[in-house]
Amino acid sequence: MNKVEALKKIATRLRIHSLKMTTRAGSGHPTTCFSMADLMACLFFDVMRYNPDDPDDWANDEFVLSKGHAAPILWAAYAEAGIIPMAELMNLRKITSVLEGHPTPRMKWVKAATGSLGQGLSVGNGIALAMKLGRSPGRVFVLMGDGESAEGAVWEAVNHAVKYKLDNLYAIVDINRLGQSEPTMHGHDIKAYEKKFRAFGWNTIKINGHRIEHILVAFKNSREKGRPTVILAKTIKGKGISFVENINGWHGKPLNKDDCEKALKEIGPMPEIDAKKYVKRPKKSNKPRLVKRYDFDRNIYKDATATRLAYGNALLNLGKVNKAVVALDGDVKNSTYNDKFFEKFPEKSFQNYIAEQGMVGMAMGLAAKGYIPFAATFAAFLCRAHDHIRMAAYSFSNIKFVGSHVGVSIGADGPSQMGLEDLAIFRPIPDCVILYPSDAYSAEGCVESLAQSKGMGYLRTTRPKTPLLYSRRDKFPIGGSKVLRNSEKDRATIIAAGITVHEALKAYEELKKEKIQVRIIDAYSIQPIDRRALLKAAQETRNNIVVVEDHFQNGGLGDAVCMALAGQAKIIHLCIKELPRSGTPEELLDKYGINAKHIKKAVKKLIES
Amino acid sequence: MNKVEALKKIATRLRIHSLKMTTRAGSGHPTTCFSMADLMACLFFDVMRYNPDDPDDWANDEFVLSKGHAAPILWAAYAEAGIIPMAELMNLRKITSVLEGHPTPRMKWVKAATGSLGQGLSVGNGIALAMKLGRSPGRVFVLMGDGESAEGAVWEAVNHAVKYKLDNLYAIVDINRLGQSEPTMHGHDIKAYEKKFRAFGWNTIKINGHRIEHILVAFKNSREKGRPTVILAKTIKGKGISFVENINGWHGKPLNKDDCEKALKEIGPMPEIDAKKYVKRPKKSNKPRLVKRYDFDRNIYKDATATRLAYGNALLNLGKVNKAVVALDGDVKNSTYNDKFFEKFPEKSFQNYIAEQGMVGMAMGLAAKGYIPFAATFAAFLCRAHDHIRMAAYSFSNIKFVGSHVGVSIGADGPSQMGLEDLAIFRPIPDCVILYPSDAYSAEGCVESLAQSKGMGYLRTTRPKTPLLYSRRDKFPIGGSKVLRNSEKDRATIIAAGITVHEALKAYEELKKEKIQVRIIDAYSIQPIDRRALLKAAQETRNNIVVVEDHFQNGGLGDAVCMALAGQAKIIHLCIKELPRSGTPEELLDKYGINAKHIKKAVKKLIES
Repeated sequence: MNKVEALKKIATRLRIHSLKMTTRAGSGHPTTCFSMADLMACLFFDVMRYNPDDPDDWANDEFVLSKGHAAPILWAAYAEAGIIPMAELMNLRKITSVLEGHPTPRMKWVKAATGSLGQGLSVGNGIALAMKLGRSPGRVFVLMGDGESAEGAVWEAVNHAVKYKLDNLYAIVDINRLGQSEPTMHGHDIKAYEKKFRAFGWNTIKINGHRIEHILVAFKNSREKGRPTVILAKTIKGKGISFVENINGWHGKPLNKDDCEKALKEIGPMPEIDAKKYVKRPKKSNKPRLVKRYDFDRNIYKDATATRLAYGNALLNLGKVNKAVVALDGDVKNSTYNDKFFEKFPEKSFQNYIAEQGMVGMAMGLAAKGYIPFAATFAAFLCRAHDHIRMAAYSFSNIKFVGSHVGVSIGADGPSQMGLEDLAIFRPIPDCVILYPSDAYSAEGCVESLAQSKGMGYLRTTRPKTPLLYSRRDKFPIGGSKVLRNSEKDRATIIAAGITVHEALKAYEELKKEKIQVRIIDAYSIQPIDRRALLKAAQETRNNIVVVEDHFQNGGLGDAVCMALAGQAKIIHLCIKELPRSGTPEELLDKYGINAKHIKKAVKKLIES
Repeated sequence: MNKVEALKKIATRLRIHSLKMTTRAGSGHPTTCFSMADLMACLFFDVMRYNPDDPDDWANDEFVLSKGHAAPILWAAYAEAGIIPMAELMNLRKITSVLEGHPTPRMKWVKAATGSLGQGLSVGNGIALAMKLGRSPGRVFVLMGDGESAEGAVWEAVNHAVKYKLDNLYAIVDINRLGQSEPTMHGHDIKAYEKKFRAFGWNTIKINGHRIEHILVAFKNSREKGRPTVILAKTIKGKGISFVENINGWHGKPLNKDDCEKALKEIGPMPEIDAKKYVKRPKKSNKPRLVKRYDFDRNIYKDATATRLAYGNALLNLGKVNKAVVALDGDVKNSTYNDKFFEKFPEKSFQNYIAEQGMVGMAMGLAAKGYIPFAATFAAFLCRAHDHIRMAAYSFSNIKFVGSHVGVSIGADGPSQMGLEDLAIFRPIPDCVILYPSDAYSAEGCVESLAQSKGMGYLRTTRPKTPLLYSRRDKFPIGGSKVLRNSEKDRATIIAAGITVHEALKAYEELKKEKIQVRIIDAYSIQPIDRRALLKAAQETRNNIVVVEDHFQNGGLGDAVCMALAGQAKIIHLCIKELPRSGTPEELLDKYGINAKHIKKAVKKLIES
């Protein structure tokens, strides 16, 4: 059997799987899968090189399904490749399966969660950069939808791929003309896409996305030294089933059982072919051993210093002992002080210009390949990347975000530059560590703790200089706090963090003159918060608490303290306390503890206490 | 004096003002102002038509300073036009002046806050659409920086302007080559910008941005029927002062007094010219009278109905009685049910495809001209527009956001599609109303309350059908709540909203069987929360509270309740409770009540209580 015949058969198998899976699940996006079935067959069973035994093989080509709603065909491809059992496909979207409705790294071959559109290409950039850094022979293939190319985030990533000359990166756009609720802006005008990608500096190739021969030739002859390649594939949504092909209104709808039967008849019997035999393995390539130490040299400070500057100093020294650390910037590195790292380690420093979404996506890709990205910008501008940050959490990314210029304390630049809602971005993310230092020493200590922790982390730094409070040897463990003033006569506790710690200390002195003793706590670990210490302080200071923070009223330290001390009102709060997953609504309400059963339990617990 | 000579003189005056203002303020971005001084002189004193007596004159051309950090020259232009007193310029960035560090609508001629880069063009789109809707002869001029064109949000807006054939829209890109921390990606390669804008379908014109003659010709001959125009102006950052011209490292730095003196000598004396005489007034044009009623026909429901569907029904009926209502979509209108409005009122419905930032920016522009935009998408994808939402708050925009598909109750699509942090986006925004209905009737009632309120609002809707709880006549005032079950024997209160109200009711029935009476509160008004009702319920039910919500632990209803009931721990929370502004750090810490003085006061209040 020749290759083209074989790939056609595999494509048909992928279509049949996608169809059956979604009908069985009762939800999903089969027509979206059909338009890209031929592309997927070529990619997974001829173009790409990967070791089916090891998702982390350093030589693997990597695949990112940017149009995450096409997850069924991704799972089908992995099943055909022998990576997951064929029977598992019928568990699509079940609460017991890693084959979720949209891909997440719960399935080990997925390097980043997708499903919020327009993000995959930036992740691909990060992976491509990591491959270049670590001398992997691998390439990255990002399969995108045409609808999602309306997202600005795509054009940030398109720009960055040119800037970094990512000739190991391929974007494939599945141009099937139809969005969710109506035709896309450009429909089947492939040239409209070609013009845009070309104008941004990409190598572009137009093909018929259903002609196996075209697809193979496109990949074979396309790689160009020094720039990324996009394959613009004209496709038909629903291709292969006459009564859904190219018809608006079929997005995100599975076929019912009867239609499924009808479709299966039209497609014909499952072609017999062992797709596993067509998987191409890569040559061996060794993963670079990256020494990862966290005990960097701490600096000595003499005078008041901005925590953002101390962060920059610490990152520089961390970079000297930890080879996995990389830094990202959105053209504010002379304000965040990421510039110190940039100067010392230009090869591990990535300039994204003013494009925070692309920066975070790139960080996701770098983290997926084992690097530890420190992505810094003004805290306010992390709002721009909120959706990417959210998806980084679902990707279990080990990224350290740094937001400088927080609060009104930045002064005259005005509200657009003030980070006043940044804590509200990071606090909802389960297990995301949030540290907020108040002086240069605690800033360096927080960098150490944050770098050492695995997973999502956020460091909040301040623009103005603040006086020194701690010493070079002090530790700032995650979940801790520091009692800065206390006596047995304390009549209230002031809980502060960052710049307001210094205001609290001033208030302490003034109150002291009036013979009013108060306790001062530096709650530098905003999340997890040091609940035990706060409770103890409350009990010892007549339950009088003042929380003071340079952040909007809701979403920050005040909320955290109120929740930690909820008391009079004995409060049980039922809500989503971990990163959720696919399942039925009923299963999920139960799993995450917000249904009638859990409410009943909570009530009983309260009234029996 | 001929026009070119006059405009040159005015440009010099603008430069001198910008220089003096920033040196006096001790902060700001003078070099950024110098590169665009000639463009500003031409725009404000020849190209644009506006009535200096009325910022809301319907015939006015509108100006959006997308590169908000150039605020000083904007204020200078308004002073030269006679709109603000010349002496006021020296109050730049003072806490007492509306001339903030970055523009906000506290200064009445500013239609949207800018300073978070890449947003201005989308606002311009909205204004241009509003002008077309309301038959204004006005045009919109958006002055952008080259650095900000790296933002994906710009390319969303570039796309939308073509889609809507906005030939009343001009973008002007001040290509001065230098970003904040290093040169931009394209430097002075004007053709790189030309290629991109052309590929997206714009009419493009390249000019030398310092040649008055070129600028005037560009605007004179450029307007093209059916598509927007961009003027790509090659400029020099710092133009006019030899020792800062075209030098990296001068971004965001005022000249010190000596350098300022030196620069003023170089520039020469303030040219004598009365710029006011060059202001061009528009012909009279009447603002359309938009009937704004809110008492729309409520629908009758028989069975369980999704709140998102009831929202769609309500919006349709609201549109029939309120001519100011417009709707925006990001290609999910068949899920949010904005599609009902789209079908009935296509001329007032705006498709942004999958580009949420562009959608929110467009809504800001429409709101600035008096329309009431309902911008709907999946709640999760509002994260994509978080920064635009933040800036809409600083713009005091009257926008109603609608987020559907909240929480794990969406089911099998998985986490990327679940809105679990949306409350955390809107709760920090001071005075932002958040309503979260639990059935079809409350959904319609919430739409009425929200539409009637002025300012930022958010409606949270649910994917699955939920049973009916209320009637067609029930009102859902902002700040209210509904007690759904209560007795004198209640031993605990369950506070819920949206889908968990129904879980709470189920728990109620089961607990009742075990002779445990509980109170059930539907806290549909998440913000402001009905604190009085919650306190009363807590007191009457032995202070036992269960909060249950389909949202992450932090940032949502739980935080709101904990803060409302903070008690045992008497807690005073000092933080930023309103939208802040420019000033010195010390002034701002004081104004917003988070410095030592306020801490001291809070402590005394607590211990004396």
